[in-house]
Amino acid sequence: MPLIKPSRICVLGAAGFIGRHVVSECLSRGNTVVAVDIVERMSPHLANHSRLEFRQGALTDEAFVRDALTGCDAVICLAPSSLPATSNADIAGEVMASVHATMKIAEIACELGVRNFVFASSGGTVYGIDSPDALPETAPTQPRNAYGVSKLAIEHYLRVLRDLRGMHTVSLRIANPYGVGQNAGNGQGFIAMAMRRAFGGESMSIWGDGSAVRDFIFVKDLAEAICAGVDYTGPEAAINIGSGLGYSLREVARMVESISGRTLELVFEPTRRIDVAHNVLDISLAFRELGWRPSTAIESGLLATAEWWETRRISQQT
Amino acid sequence: MPLIKPSRICVLGAAGFIGRHVVSECLSRGNTVVAVDIVERMSPHLANHSRLEFRQGALTDEAFVRDALTGCDAVICLAPSSLPATSNADIAGEVMASVHATMKIAEIACELGVRNFVFASSGGTVYGIDSPDALPETAPTQPRNAYGVSKLAIEHYLRVLRDLRGMHTVSLRIANPYGVGQNAGNGQGFIAMAMRRAFGGESMSIWGDGSAVRDFIFVKDLAEAICAGVDYTGPEAAINIGSGLGYSLREVARMVESISGRTLELVFEPTRRIDVAHNVLDISLAFRELGWRPSTAIESGLLATAEWWETRRISQQT
Repeated sequence: MPLIKPSRICVLGAAGFIGRHVVSECLSRGNTVVAVDIVERMSPHLANHSRLEFRQGALTDEAFVRDALTGCDAVICLAPSSLPATSNADIAGEVMASVHATMKIAEIACELGVRNFVFASSGGTVYGIDSPDALPETAPTQPRNAYGVSKLAIEHYLRVLRDLRGMHTVSLRIANPYGVGQNAGNGQGFIAMAMRRAFGGESMSIWGDGSAVRDFIFVKDLAEAICAGVDYTGPEAAINIGSGLGYSLREVARMVESISGRTLELVFEPTRRIDVAHNVLDISLAFRELGWRPSTAIESGLLATAEWWETRRISQQT
Repeated sequence: MPLIKPSRICVLGAAGFIGRHVVSECLSRGNTVVAVDIVERMSPHLANHSRLEFRQGALTDEAFVRDALTGCDAVICLAPSSLPATSNADIAGEVMASVHATMKIAEIACELGVRNFVFASSGGTVYGIDSPDALPETAPTQPRNAYGVSKLAIEHYLRVLRDLRGMHTVSLRIANPYGVGQNAGNGQGFIAMAMRRAFGGESMSIWGDGSAVRDFIFVKDLAEAICAGVDYTGPEAAINIGSGLGYSLREVARMVESISGRTLELVFEPTRRIDVAHNVLDISLAFRELGWRPSTAIESGLLATAEWWETRRISQQT
């Protein structure tokens, strides 16, 4: 099958933390980007790019979505999404806001002849099992929260859509992204929260004793993986995207302390039932199928992130 | 944990093929049944039972559902459902009609303090893989149609609901049910269709060459399994319910011919991509967890079914 590099890419959720890095990466590869978000504008350093079209609107607005997707070769679907922690309180609402909304968008894309659809799934929640080893894509999937169930359901529906209606779809099971530009406001982003607390001189709550091990992926590496996914026409429906390495929350907190040169006091809270002790992704399939592997060691990634927080702190003071 | 036998059971989809047998079985066990369906009435032999309350209404009507479920100890959820063959044409619509509607009902049940929620999942579609061996519940789940994805998603959401909000839920992965009272109108029910064609003197279309192997479960056995599920408070979230035996469509057609004493000509159509060659369920978990196993050999089940079709034919002629 001839591989045609998509030239017009629609990024849904373009103004978010991952979205901004994905837009940058798409632009630097020479693509035109239709950047879609509910917020009013993109960050200034992207907003004026000649190959960027920004469109503000709600992803539940079918006419708006249809208009934004028309003429696009590929869609990168980073939104709509909910939060792992709050998805369980209203599961029917979660089904609507996440699964229904995403499949509506995917079917519109399919109808409009979009060639590739890249979905941001969640390597941290779709497996749900506790494993001391890195998880391959063939591991059992038993999500522990509604957020993870929704991600998994969307993966399966997209695979069916691909097999029966011919649009290439791929779901990237993303580990815990961190890096420059990640705020720490909504309960997500352990590293962002640690940076915020360290630079603010505050203590930080951790669920459990800090021994839980996670896979952290630097957002620049992630953006490259997502762009590699745009060109993917191979047989895999779901591909892990992570660092392939595990660090405990306690280790990461210590690294944040050491890199920021500040003290970070940890306060330990009872473990939540929905948390798994060990979640690290096997990323060998991503290399085989996408030719992608991460290039940023956690120390370098944390350093870049700490520099951003430091600059931000200074700019807020002046 | 003390096992309290539920005494008031709400059956959703009570007037359907499986529903009628489940209602009978529940009544014969001494329970009171709230029978819910969109159709106007239950079959006459059930309608006048003193422990049956029939309620006509739509499962999308939240107030109606809330009212029907109030005071019930358990819910048997046989509806809402879509059809495997048509679920792929409008996946977003399928998400609404199946996943959203079911989870809305489950959350209402949870809120009202219902103790047990039994969901009719699909052993024929949630696995999606082709395996020469009987499939245990731990087999990979890669549904090939949107119908199967929806069933699997509901299973996972119900497990999350159980773990986080305390209502016992269990999903029964049901094989291909057949038996007395199954009509052959909507593309489902290979045996019902074979009976109809045989008794009508018509030929019958089969996808593929008739070598596809399926697990057929007699509806009376199935109704017993579902009622056993109502009392289940164990740890398993999904349990296979089938005969555990595989027969090819060709073999079944021959058995129908021989038992009905009529000729059934088969017309072979090209295989559909969404069909698997071999789907038989490992039912050992059902015996361990529910104390249930099927008691009807396919020959006896087909005989009872053929007698019903014969009676029906005669009654339609007079």
